[in-house]
Amino acid sequence: MTSPYQVLPIGYVESPLADREAAPKQGIEGAPEAWLVFDPEYAEAMRDLAVDDEVYVLTWLHQADRGVLVVHPRGDPRNPETGVFSTRSPDRPNPIGLHRVRILAIEGTRVRVRDLEAIDGTPLVDVKPVLDGGR
Amino acid sequence: MTSPYQVLPIGYVESPLADREAAPKQGIEGAPEAWLVFDPEYAEAMRDLAVDDEVYVLTWLHQADRGVLVVHPRGDPRNPETGVFSTRSPDRPNPIGLHRVRILAIEGTRVRVRDLEAIDGTPLVDVKPVLDGGR
Repeated sequence: MTSPYQVLPIGYVESPLADREAAPKQGIEGAPEAWLVFDPEYAEAMRDLAVDDEVYVLTWLHQADRGVLVVHPRGDPRNPETGVFSTRSPDRPNPIGLHRVRILAIEGTRVRVRDLEAIDGTPLVDVKPVLDGGR
Repeated sequence: MTSPYQVLPIGYVESPLADREAAPKQGIEGAPEAWLVFDPEYAEAMRDLAVDDEVYVLTWLHQADRGVLVVHPRGDPRNPETGVFSTRSPDRPNPIGLHRVRILAIEGTRVRVRDLEAIDGTPLVDVKPVLDGGR
């Protein structure tokens, strides 16, 4: 196996969601609006984001347990244990969150989005456009 | 800014695509079939993947230039310079590839997929199910 790679946060999430217990399992299940707060050194990289764009936000779920390989989906013990690569559990070997959101407003290097289920302070890792066909 | 986080490869891509020049810009533009080769220590995490599943594969694009903040989309100088967070350029601060693929076959910890544009030897970082609504 090759040596590890380092993720450098490009900013962080500012959200009224204070902890994992308060966060919905998926953004479309009632997540509040939130801000993506980019570090100013990445201003050029985010300069072409626009209101109404639909984008993928990748986060580093910094409170995750990276040793977890199987979970009861949605934390419900009635659901049979399932390998984490078949779930969206935050607990997984590389706890990268994948969130599809819509941009509501932009103020400098702050980007307001809806449907982001990440908690306040979650590091931002990347932003990518949603391509034609929803990919 | 918080300290960096380490990505630990969970396996690698086995593909006939030998280098970046040979790879299509997107998987739906003619990428060949490829294998996801999981490290055996993650066998439990991938045990519930199934043929015909559509999943997101996250990779670490290890040949990327992480200092790039703007690019000419698709490498074409006629396209105006664009911030990388509005593109799928592999060159970006955290070079995580996001690939939506379909599972064709599973042999132990080897998973055959179609439409994967990553080159041979690309480290695997994560696999997630595509949710209802294509998210």
